[in-house]
Amino acid sequence: MTRVLKEPEERKAEIMDTAQELFHIKGYEATTISDILEKAGIARGTFYYYFKSKDEIMNAVIERGIAEQIQTLMPIVENNNLNALEKLKQLIVENDRKNAENADMLAYLHQPENIVMHQKSLIQGVHQSAPLIAQIIRQGIEEGRFHTEYSLELAEFILVGTSFLFDSSIFHWEREEYSARMKALADILETTLRTEQGCFKFLHLLAKKT
Amino acid sequence: MTRVLKEPEERKAEIMDTAQELFHIKGYEATTISDILEKAGIARGTFYYYFKSKDEIMNAVIERGIAEQIQTLMPIVENNNLNALEKLKQLIVENDRKNAENADMLAYLHQPENIVMHQKSLIQGVHQSAPLIAQIIRQGIEEGRFHTEYSLELAEFILVGTSFLFDSSIFHWEREEYSARMKALADILETTLRTEQGCFKFLHLLAKKT
Repeated sequence: MTRVLKEPEERKAEIMDTAQELFHIKGYEATTISDILEKAGIARGTFYYYFKSKDEIMNAVIERGIAEQIQTLMPIVENNNLNALEKLKQLIVENDRKNAENADMLAYLHQPENIVMHQKSLIQGVHQSAPLIAQIIRQGIEEGRFHTEYSLELAEFILVGTSFLFDSSIFHWEREEYSARMKALADILETTLRTEQGCFKFLHLLAKKT
Repeated sequence: MTRVLKEPEERKAEIMDTAQELFHIKGYEATTISDILEKAGIARGTFYYYFKSKDEIMNAVIERGIAEQIQTLMPIVENNNLNALEKLKQLIVENDRKNAENADMLAYLHQPENIVMHQKSLIQGVHQSAPLIAQIIRQGIEEGRFHTEYSLELAEFILVGTSFLFDSSIFHWEREEYSARMKALADILETTLRTEQGCFKFLHLLAKKT
């Protein structure tokens, strides 16, 4: 009788799936490594072969989740028929739509007991998205549309500002406060990218979702 | 024999002092309400007369701490001999100096177990500082120096960006990465305030402290 052995990468991904499910159901703090072992049906040694700690598997789960989310946006980033402004616009609108669609799934990150995981996921989001946004800004510079010496640093600053300021579990804006901040964001993008006034006016229409 | 009764505000402040000390020594998560009662020498009913929960006393401690820090900066805000740009410069430099001076005291907020308290204190800092910065921006507009329709929203965006991006427990920059981001910040301020290029060049000199 032969046993079908799993590839290490496949095994690792399965353990991450299990952990992710538990973090989702029980919350990060309340989930123990023993919970993960039991649900995954693996020995403690197997877990430690792949991960040093609960913190490490949480980071792996977050990085994978962000990478998957970014992957779904890549068709926009790589679309040669779009200019830099069109790309930014489509990315923002599509990301906004996806966040609204996944609101239920993201709700657990907004629980007070998952604040560590939530903050790490915002930071990972900034680190992973900034180079892509910077690449689009550089495309806009080549097109003569944008003008800045700080494509990466500006991308980071805008991503940090928007990720934290527009996160409903961090800042609690009324509908009108939110709207005023989206208008300000349009102005911030237009001035820092030294581009035409009104380019980012579509942001005025992105209303508060929840 | 007469007993000297304490005024309620004084009593409340003393309980907050005790809680603050315990949060500092043991960390927020590890401190229980019983710890606070014991150290303050008060009955449970007295605590609940002033605070609904540990979360509420934490918020009160944070708000008071931020208010005190802002108070030390008020002589700059209220100095009629300074123009708006000079005020912003002095506030940034003085705040940077104070943070370096208080690095030891602030270190406990950077412990992973105090992340809830730390995030709340960054948010409180933004909420309490933004109106002051907005007031200085409006002074600059009157002086014909700055030009924006979004003084408050811009102040918030800049404060959120800088508070989170330059917090050493959230983003870990090497010295050169930090320096590039300070240069970008100068550019962001100059463009969003539509002011003279080079006005915020002093930021290039604010080196990474820790």
